[in-house]
Order: sequence, then C-alpha cells, then structure tokens
Amino acid sequence: MSEIFRHPEPVTLSDEDLRLYVDFMDVLAEASAAVINPLFRTNLAMENKQTYDFFDPVTEADKGAEAAIRKLINEHYPDHGIFGEEYGEEIGKSPLTWTIDPVDGTRAFVLGLPSWGTLVALHDGARPVLGMLNQPFMKECFIGAPQIGLAELRNASGTTPLHTRDCGSLSNASLTSTHPSMFDTEPFKDTYETLRKSVRQEGFGGDCYAYGLIALGTHDLVVENTLSAYDIQALIPIIEAAGGIVTSWTGGPADLGGAVIAAGNAKVHAEALTILSQAA
Amino acid sequence: MSEIFRHPEPVTLSDEDLRLYVDFMDVLAEASAAVINPLFRTNLAMENKQTYDFFDPVTEADKGAEAAIRKLINEHYPDHGIFGEEYGEEIGKSPLTWTIDPVDGTRAFVLGLPSWGTLVALHDGARPVLGMLNQPFMKECFIGAPQIGLAELRNASGTTPLHTRDCGSLSNASLTSTHPSMFDTEPFKDTYETLRKSVRQEGFGGDCYAYGLIALGTHDLVVENTLSAYDIQALIPIIEAAGGIVTSWTGGPADLGGAVIAAGNAKVHAEALTILSQAA
Repeated sequence: MSEIFRHPEPVTLSDEDLRLYVDFMDVLAEASAAVINPLFRTNLAMENKQTYDFFDPVTEADKGAEAAIRKLINEHYPDHGIFGEEYGEEIGKSPLTWTIDPVDGTRAFVLGLPSWGTLVALHDGARPVLGMLNQPFMKECFIGAPQIGLAELRNASGTTPLHTRDCGSLSNASLTSTHPSMFDTEPFKDTYETLRKSVRQEGFGGDCYAYGLIALGTHDLVVENTLSAYDIQALIPIIEAAGGIVTSWTGGPADLGGAVIAAGNAKVHAEALTILSQAA
Repeated sequence: MSEIFRHPEPVTLSDEDLRLYVDFMDVLAEASAAVINPLFRTNLAMENKQTYDFFDPVTEADKGAEAAIRKLINEHYPDHGIFGEEYGEEIGKSPLTWTIDPVDGTRAFVLGLPSWGTLVALHDGARPVLGMLNQPFMKECFIGAPQIGLAELRNASGTTPLHTRDCGSLSNASLTSTHPSMFDTEPFKDTYETLRKSVRQEGFGGDCYAYGLIALGTHDLVVENTLSAYDIQALIPIIEAAGGIVTSWTGGPADLGGAVIAAGNAKVHAEALTILSQAA
C-alpha cells in the first residue's frame, strides 16, 4: 500500500484536470448513494433472531457501493489505481490512485445513526489532493481540493464555503474521537486521557462526520488511532482546503492512517501534538 | 417536581383528547424548530476569540424554543402545568403537565452534529402518556402515545410505523450511552463496564436520537445516568408505544430521571437489569 502512496514520480495535476475529477466525484456520490441509501435502517425486522446477522445490511452497502465506484473509475480512468476497504488494491499505470471507504462509520450505520459517510480521495502518488465525504441519508456532501481553493458543504440549503475556526487555545477546543477502543492500549490510553482533560468539551462518536465539522468551523479537534489509509485520505484535502491541518501524532503525513490528529488551526494542533507526541 | 408527577388525582384522558394533544405537538414542533434551526451551526466565525462564549447559540436556542413552547401551552391550555429545563416549574390547576427539553444534546448541538432533539412530553400526573422527539435539522419527528397505539417516525420519506426489535439476548444487543462521564463514579462505573462487555456492540454518543432508534427497531439498549425528568419523559411513551420498555436501573418508573434503561424488548431489559441492579 505504501508504495502506491509514495510513488517515485507523483503526478502534478493541472487545475483543469482537478476540476474534472471534482465533477467525477458527483458521479461517484450518486452511484454509491443509490446502493447504500436503500439499505440504511433495513435491519429493522429480525424474523429469525437465531441466524440473523446484524452486519448484513452494512456489508452489502459496503460491497455494493465500492463495486459501483470501482466500475465507474475503471470505465472513466482505466489507467488509475484504486485502493478500497472491501476489494483492496488495484495498481494503476498512472501514479493517481482513488482511495475508497464506501461506508465509514459502520457502527453508526448499523444503529441507524447518520454520522457514517462515503469517503473517496484522489491521491497523486505523494498526497491526497481531492477528497469527498458524502452523507447521502442527510444529503450532505463535503468536498475539498486545496490546489484550486475548493472547500464546500453542499446540502439542502445550497452550497456553504468551508472555513475552519480559530478557537484560540487547546483549553478552548472541542475534541472528539469515534470510540474509546481506539485508545485501549498504553501509551495511547494515558495520552488520550491527558488530552481529554486539556480541552473545553470532549466526547465520543461522530465518525467521519466529525472531520467535516472541523472543516465547517463548528468543531476543533478529532484525534484517533488505528485508522486505515481509506479512513482518513478523503478528509485531509477537505480540512486542509478549509484552513485546517491533518497529521500523524508526530506531525508527519497522515495519509497512510495510524494515529491521526485533525485540527482547525495550527496553534491548537501544535498544543495537542505536545501531548500526543509522548505516545508516539 | 416529584409532586406534579405523582399527583393524588391523575387525569384519565379520553382517546379523543389525546389525539388533540397529538395534533398540538405538531404546533410545538414547528414553533420550536423556527427558533432553533437558524441558530444551529452559527458558532462558525469566532471574531473575538478571547470573549467568545461557545455556548451562546445553544443557550439562545434553548431559551428561545422553550419560551415559544410555553407561550403556546399557556395560550391553548392555561390550566396545564409546565416543567422545562430552562424556566423550571409552573404548577397547573390541572394534573396535566407538559415537560420540555428544548435542545436535548447540547454537546452535539454545539459541535454541529444533528443528534440533538426537542423533547416534549405530556404527563397525566402519574406517567407520561404522549411524547415527541423532534429533530428539526434532519426534519425527523418521532411521536408516541401507547393508549391510542400511536408510534410513528415522520420524515422526508413519509410516515414509518415504529416497532422495536427482538435481538434475542443481551449478548446480541447494541448498547449506547451519551457520554462516559455519566458513569464517572462507583458503583456506576464498574457496573456500566460490565454491561459494555456483555453486549455485541457498544459505543458513546447518539443523545436522545439513540432512544428514537430503539423505537425504530435498529438499536436495542440505551443506558444512562444522572438524567433529569425532562431528558427522559418524552422518550418513554415513544418507546413503550413501539413495543419497548423504559425503567430505572431497579425496574421502577423512569419519568423522574436518574439512572435509566431503555430497551427494545423485555428479555434484554431483564438481562441488563440483572447487571445494573448491582449498582442501584
């Protein structure tokens, strides 16, 4: 995996090409939503509770949506690589790779909570340059591409430009993380506890949607651990284009996953990193 | 407070009266949404970060929405009592009391996550007989009244009847709670940890919306502590009308708040109570 994301010859995309890929994201959002939305909240009736597998709807949604997205990429950009949660890696002739998490936030999906999302990133061989977080049940789509200054939330109210906020200091920041199990082992557990005690408001949950809220400027920090590359790549260009910063706990690139911090501004990021680097 | 909810002469409502109150809930939902929705996600810009109070939008939403609801109740039912989070208790000539939490889930509201809701219950002096959970940003409204067999989710897709599911056993159940701080002290901490380890899937977050998902049949258990009466009363008739059960951790009435368990079916409720009663 790290080979395709650390390509010896990454692509430098023109603004024009990047805009075409932005338009293509709409096509991917529509195709994946058509698969996923009919499956959301369908684990209602449990006719045979002995054999019923709770995770069926989300597995079907995951597989079906990723297959739909892969088909479109193969049709439109047969030279490009693909890296997805469900069907793994297809190395492309081009250093460009599409990174897919069809349903990020499977716990939330299974419960019926709409904080899950479809994540798609375009990676140029060195970094993710375009990202989309689509929440088709709420009909909200976050999209970002720093190179062309694109950072937007599209929903029923129209298009809202995304700008992170400056909360001033870590002690004034809001912090979330999807689930405590991300910090079950030391040194992550103690470190995250220290961080939790250093902020104004903290909580669990939110999934990928919490990263979108940093870009929207209503939230300051998401700190997670044990992420995969497909969990985070789409969110990096969205937050960066909105004025925020996403790195590893040591301040390095976050696009390979692992221990990740996303912040609305550099000062809060630096303050949090001072704590997190103790575990890294 | 406990006096108005343990009235010596509770009212027995006719089905016809109850249906009038169901219609009145629509009026309350619309009036509170008109106050709250424009304030949601308005803590975007922080022009003066030294003095900015993060909680302003939610405090304004809370106060404005409760005032709007109180005004309507006073106009339409001047004899009825009111018990609300923001403006306390108005004892009525009638044993009927409207219990209001204008924005339940303030942490979520402040972050921009739409798992908060407006909760309104009608209490007959002995128990809550009608409850509404309105999520105006997502335009989803859960409503329940066991006496008239009303249990519905109303949203963009239309009206969905609410039915809890039977997941078979505690080991097959999903469990959520809004925030770990509810279980910070013993004996609640150890007891909740034991419960978390006894289920199939657990997590934090979800707020009042998680109770709605039990009624919808996609979720099994919400277990919380340190609740107020206005946090839980509206959710009781919704879950009961959908086939579920809401009690205290000792199996008694939950309408006064405190340590509460909501379950989709009686078997899972009983299994969880065996664990929870150790702390009660």
